[in-house]
Amino acid sequence: MSERPVAGHPIQRLDDDVHQRVRLGVLTVLAGVARADFAHLKATLAVTDGNLGRHLEALERAGHVEITKVIDGRRPRTWVRITRQGRHALRREVEALRELIAGLDGAAEPGD
Amino acid sequence: MSERPVAGHPIQRLDDDVHQRVRLGVLTVLAGVARADFAHLKATLAVTDGNLGRHLEALERAGHVEITKVIDGRRPRTWVRITRQGRHALRREVEALRELIAGLDGAAEPGD
Repeated sequence: MSERPVAGHPIQRLDDDVHQRVRLGVLTVLAGVARADFAHLKATLAVTDGNLGRHLEALERAGHVEITKVIDGRRPRTWVRITRQGRHALRREVEALRELIAGLDGAAEPGD
Repeated sequence: MSERPVAGHPIQRLDDDVHQRVRLGVLTVLAGVARADFAHLKATLAVTDGNLGRHLEALERAGHVEITKVIDGRRPRTWVRITRQGRHALRREVEALRELIAGLDGAAEPGD
């Protein structure tokens, strides 16, 4: 192994704001729908209220989602939708992941 | 949006031990080589000594890599290699990521 850097390993283009497991899940679910509610995200991703709430706040702070709280009948409901910026961030993440996976496909598997 | 869980969203099969950005990078680099040294990993992934060191320890604790410290001439050198378990864990991660990306490809992009 030389110590020369391999320019631009795809891992360098992954953004922790998007790559983190629950956040990537939220953006992935939202990419295909106009909006989703908190309960749907929670059930789909199999996470706790607290965990999902924290990651939604982080995604909102980063500008990747918009959160709207409404009263639906008599119960409060939290709607979440992906922003244009969030969609672009997800696209960059997926491009880096594709590149990373393509690099692996070309790698030998010595001694396995 | 209904509250019915979508059974087995691929995000549920991502393991934080492997998915975390630097750890995924380490395993990806190691998958294609017999072993790599600390300096090579650091340069390839563009991370600090401290950050790489912490994630290597976590990967070693999880059984995904083996770390060997040797004296090479007069300087200490840290070699890292992926274990069979680490290779399997990386394969599971990549399978879940492929599925996640495939799901996105099929998703409409309303209003973008």
